[in-house]
Amino acid sequence: MILSALLTSVGINVALCLLFFILYSVLRNRPSYADFYIPRLVAEGKFQEEDEFSVGKLLSSVKWVKRAWQPSEDELLANSGLDAVVFMRIFTFGLRVFRFAGIIGLCILLPFNYMGNQLNIDFTDLPNKSLESFSISNVDDGSNRLWIHFAAVYIFTAVVCYLLYYEYDYIASKRIGYFYSSKPRPGQFTVLVRSIPTTSGRSFSESVESFFSEYYPSTYLSHSVVRRTSKLKGLINEADKVYKRLVHLKTKKHPQERFKRAGFMGLFGRRVDLLDHYEKKLEDVEGNVRIERSSISGKEVPAAFVSFKSRFSAAIVSHVQQGVKPTEWLTEQAPDPQDVYWPFFSASFIKRWFCNIAVIFACSFVTILFLVPVLLVQGLTHLDQLEVWLPFLRGILKLKIVSQVITGYFPSLILEMFLSLVPPVMIVLSSIQGYIALSQIEKSACIKVLWFTIWNVFFANVLSGSALYRVDVFLEPKRIPELLAVAVPGQASFFIAYVVTSGWTKTFSSELFRLKRLFWSFLKGTLCWKSDEELEVPSNPYHSEIPRILFFSLLGITYFFLAPLILPFVLVYYCLGYVIYRNQLLNVYAPKFETGGKFWPVVHDATIFSLILMHVIAIGIFGLKKVPLASSLTIPLPILTLIFNSYCRRRFLPSFKGYPAECLINKDRFDQSDPTISSFYDELATAYRDPAMKPVRYSEASESSSSPLLYGADK
Amino acid sequence: MILSALLTSVGINVALCLLFFILYSVLRNRPSYADFYIPRLVAEGKFQEEDEFSVGKLLSSVKWVKRAWQPSEDELLANSGLDAVVFMRIFTFGLRVFRFAGIIGLCILLPFNYMGNQLNIDFTDLPNKSLESFSISNVDDGSNRLWIHFAAVYIFTAVVCYLLYYEYDYIASKRIGYFYSSKPRPGQFTVLVRSIPTTSGRSFSESVESFFSEYYPSTYLSHSVVRRTSKLKGLINEADKVYKRLVHLKTKKHPQERFKRAGFMGLFGRRVDLLDHYEKKLEDVEGNVRIERSSISGKEVPAAFVSFKSRFSAAIVSHVQQGVKPTEWLTEQAPDPQDVYWPFFSASFIKRWFCNIAVIFACSFVTILFLVPVLLVQGLTHLDQLEVWLPFLRGILKLKIVSQVITGYFPSLILEMFLSLVPPVMIVLSSIQGYIALSQIEKSACIKVLWFTIWNVFFANVLSGSALYRVDVFLEPKRIPELLAVAVPGQASFFIAYVVTSGWTKTFSSELFRLKRLFWSFLKGTLCWKSDEELEVPSNPYHSEIPRILFFSLLGITYFFLAPLILPFVLVYYCLGYVIYRNQLLNVYAPKFETGGKFWPVVHDATIFSLILMHVIAIGIFGLKKVPLASSLTIPLPILTLIFNSYCRRRFLPSFKGYPAECLINKDRFDQSDPTISSFYDELATAYRDPAMKPVRYSEASESSSSPLLYGADK
Repeated sequence: MILSALLTSVGINVALCLLFFILYSVLRNRPSYADFYIPRLVAEGKFQEEDEFSVGKLLSSVKWVKRAWQPSEDELLANSGLDAVVFMRIFTFGLRVFRFAGIIGLCILLPFNYMGNQLNIDFTDLPNKSLESFSISNVDDGSNRLWIHFAAVYIFTAVVCYLLYYEYDYIASKRIGYFYSSKPRPGQFTVLVRSIPTTSGRSFSESVESFFSEYYPSTYLSHSVVRRTSKLKGLINEADKVYKRLVHLKTKKHPQERFKRAGFMGLFGRRVDLLDHYEKKLEDVEGNVRIERSSISGKEVPAAFVSFKSRFSAAIVSHVQQGVKPTEWLTEQAPDPQDVYWPFFSASFIKRWFCNIAVIFACSFVTILFLVPVLLVQGLTHLDQLEVWLPFLRGILKLKIVSQVITGYFPSLILEMFLSLVPPVMIVLSSIQGYIALSQIEKSACIKVLWFTIWNVFFANVLSGSALYRVDVFLEPKRIPELLAVAVPGQASFFIAYVVTSGWTKTFSSELFRLKRLFWSFLKGTLCWKSDEELEVPSNPYHSEIPRILFFSLLGITYFFLAPLILPFVLVYYCLGYVIYRNQLLNVYAPKFETGGKFWPVVHDATIFSLILMHVIAIGIFGLKKVPLASSLTIPLPILTLIFNSYCRRRFLPSFKGYPAECLINKDRFDQSDPTISSFYDELATAYRDPAMKPVRYSEASESSSSPLLYGADK
Repeated sequence: MILSALLTSVGINVALCLLFFILYSVLRNRPSYADFYIPRLVAEGKFQEEDEFSVGKLLSSVKWVKRAWQPSEDELLANSGLDAVVFMRIFTFGLRVFRFAGIIGLCILLPFNYMGNQLNIDFTDLPNKSLESFSISNVDDGSNRLWIHFAAVYIFTAVVCYLLYYEYDYIASKRIGYFYSSKPRPGQFTVLVRSIPTTSGRSFSESVESFFSEYYPSTYLSHSVVRRTSKLKGLINEADKVYKRLVHLKTKKHPQERFKRAGFMGLFGRRVDLLDHYEKKLEDVEGNVRIERSSISGKEVPAAFVSFKSRFSAAIVSHVQQGVKPTEWLTEQAPDPQDVYWPFFSASFIKRWFCNIAVIFACSFVTILFLVPVLLVQGLTHLDQLEVWLPFLRGILKLKIVSQVITGYFPSLILEMFLSLVPPVMIVLSSIQGYIALSQIEKSACIKVLWFTIWNVFFANVLSGSALYRVDVFLEPKRIPELLAVAVPGQASFFIAYVVTSGWTKTFSSELFRLKRLFWSFLKGTLCWKSDEELEVPSNPYHSEIPRILFFSLLGITYFFLAPLILPFVLVYYCLGYVIYRNQLLNVYAPKFETGGKFWPVVHDATIFSLILMHVIAIGIFGLKKVPLASSLTIPLPILTLIFNSYCRRRFLPSFKGYPAECLINKDRFDQSDPTISSFYDELATAYRDPAMKPVRYSEASESSSSPLLYGADK
């Protein structure tokens, strides 16, 4: 890629970003779009209508940037919880890293790269220069200038490690602070017990009762056994659908619309009153629900939520092995009730263990299967091949516009389509693994998506780009540095373009402007019967966002000394992201759960991986560039980084797994003086009831009021 | 190696074994050797002198075999603890595995190997047949008979896994049973706290007191802070030495012997009364000890043993993170007082972490450094090379006997010498890692010695034997199966000889007959002033014995389908070992500590490793033998074995790390009704005093009685 091409691409993308920015600023305060752009404010009743349109309004509406920028971290914490703060710390951390990297890269490395003669590029014509002349490829083989790159790698690693340590420390202390300031939450007092052993003539509920009241008589409070409710859930969903249809029918002004023929597709048969029809149906379903609910007590699962009088007792039970057999009476800290993932409630140890192994294989399979779309895309870029396979297309493909669309736009569209399928697939895989909390599932999916992205976007592109796409490279570890050193620098311009298009424009279009959602809802609004759906406040999809953000940090770190030209683009991405995501957290997303910052270790590990990857490439590059001494002297660097990482794991990771006894006991004592604690204990006894078990009455609701009485959904 | 050579070697070794067996049987009941061969019985006063010698006595003295065989496992448990039982289970397990392997190998695999024609060996002359004709090398390439080997590998793996599961289950239940039947031990009630944070103006003792009495007011009992006592220990050792010299002087009958000249080497200067001299010296040293002891309270280490009223409280404190910072208030279950390793009492987290990393490097270094003696040995077998280097030796080397000794005996002597240095070196390395119990050090050293043996005896021999001794093979994982398949079968005859010499004869000579110790003590007795040392009952050196035993099991498992001829030899080794080690455990070794069977997971992991190694070789062999389908179909086997291992780790390993809450609480409740518990609590308060801190008075002891008053050594 030459410099002018890069500038053109940047120009187009900046224009697109500006367009989306202006559109968003204009639309965000329009009442018809408020549900899209500020659902959280609308739900909280903080939305003021501004119906008229003027240029002054337009200018003032740009103020959202300021409003997103202004709130302090503590305000964000109070508003969106610790997870949101930790999410924003990824940007703060990225900004710090790439500010430093940018200064070193642009002021020191770039000039030295440019002054090299390895590639023999003409000096005079700057716009037509290849971007390669700014990369390490342009430095002469065996030149002493490479020692500057060597020093830069060492210094950069040291700085990143310092920042990692600082950030881990900061977030760990925030986590403790957040715990101290939090109100009593059911999850803190409760333990999930799985693999309850079967005793003849005793229900699981009796087993749990007798076990915990025998061994923890002074602190055991109550328990609720989990039940198999999938059938009940199906019935309730059906009732819900019928109820919604009923409410919709009642709002219709013309009574004629209520009648429909009973026969095939509503075309034949006698006319029936749909209102009567649905009311009758609702009653039937409700009857079924009631029957199913009465028989549900027999469908116990060997798992129970056991609540205790203090946080410390719950922590003890979750930390110490309970039963003699390590695969029975398995305990873990329970998630909060709204965080519990009821559908896949697997209880047996063997089953979960087996599912875990199956998911590992499934994950590898998905990752390898993804090569199919990648190959498909590569096939599309070679149209001549396509013409040979499908000769009837020859006429159409001769048209310039068609071929341009197919080669230029289709490949990336197909790739994006497939890539957008990955996070939901990973969520499904994680849920099969037997996690019982939405937060755990999302964290596990986050890690899966991250590795998938690194493998299928970074390695697949790097290795396919250099015609070395062979998985068996990884069976010869000795050759990896050399291969990466050959392949990675060649893809610098591709990844710079990637940062601009997939980073900048996509953040604006899909995150801020929510283009995809807008498009779907537009389609739905015009084509189908538009339902009066209640306003749905989404939650931040950490599992798809964090990997995206971390991938740009991986690109920035690995290309730091190879092609410093990427750094300003990554830096701009982090700046944009900082403002946009802050805005979204305050206006769009409502927290669905609170992990207390458990996503940070993922960020830490990913950064360490990026550093190691950079070191491996450095070892290869210095070897290729004929400075073997620098290559050998770089070998201790990954080892030192891993040692640093192992220290951090011991120093900080335990803080993210649970809370220390000191904090738990202090907080428990503080609560003892709180007069509301006894009412909290009462709530605790019913907190972990399956939402399907909560009583709902549709028939009454549908008669009495127009506001739909929800079926006791997770709150 | 040809069959007759093997038979000769077996014959010689059987003769040697018989010789040692008879010598041992004769000598064991002689009073002058009783201290060597039955020190434990002597120490327990169960030894009856049999001074006269006759043939009838000789026959009856062989009865020790029966006496070693007879006791049931429960009697062994009562006599020597669970560790000894687990140690003997290695033999039981080995016997079961190799009984099955022997039947399959000798009845099915061996005939098929022998019937092959690959090596074109003459059929008629059995004694001169190469041992290769009994191995898989003799099966024709591409022959369908290899599918029998394939089936054997699968069946054998399944049987070994079943036996592993059964054994793990059995030992885990034994462990719980042993816990229930054990008396209260200080280690069960005590937690070791390390990295106590420094608070200004407060001693560590005060910090510990305030922390635990604040957070565990109802169960906290007492604590004792660890102090830096290395100087005090040095002084006490000095006092001990002087005291022993003094006692020795007093026993001399001729008063003249007490006088010596004060000058250089006792040759010049005035004559002094040594008795006075030593008495004065003892007083001086005792004074120093007293001064040092009074100042010791200032030398606190940030570590303390904290005792609680119940086992469950101690378990809670050791399981739950205590302080806010995960690197402070580090807790772990304390070892029993006699198991504590005082000298290297490292307390700081950073220091221990750093030492851990340093030890990993040191271990790798030692393992690599060991190549030097290996190469030296290989050099000695090539005498012509030696003659070139050291021409003056040419004359001597021409003598046949000299060259035979140098090529035949020296290499193995040097290797054995270096190998016998390995366990003590590994013990030192493990103690540097910051373990605080002798048992932990020995377990860690056991693992180190095991890997060292596997690497330096198995891989070094296998790879050097086939002139492929290159460490970088392991950087190309894809080639490993092929390389091993080429190299391993070639060393079959070497390892058969190794089992016979190093297994059979060494077990008889060094374990039963204790040749090395006998030799040293003989040297000491004739050359030096023989001290009236007290009888020392040794403990079983698990860290050097377990790796040796497991190494033979590794040989048996890897060569099971390659060269089944090794199996009867391994089986005989396990039979001999069973009787001899049982005898030693009952008569020689006294348990120094009790880990409750924590050595078993090492045995389990080593067996799994042996299986995987066998599978890797099988994959390679089937490839080489041109049955690629069998090679591919073997690939799932190591994966399945690893899955089985991961299940075992979850199913059993937690049982070996601590005790479940159920057992702890039951046992605590049982103790509450025990009237002796209050006196046990009193003992607990002083149980963890550094042995150097216990008061001793030499001067009084030396005046009052002749029996030496020990300086409060570990009991």
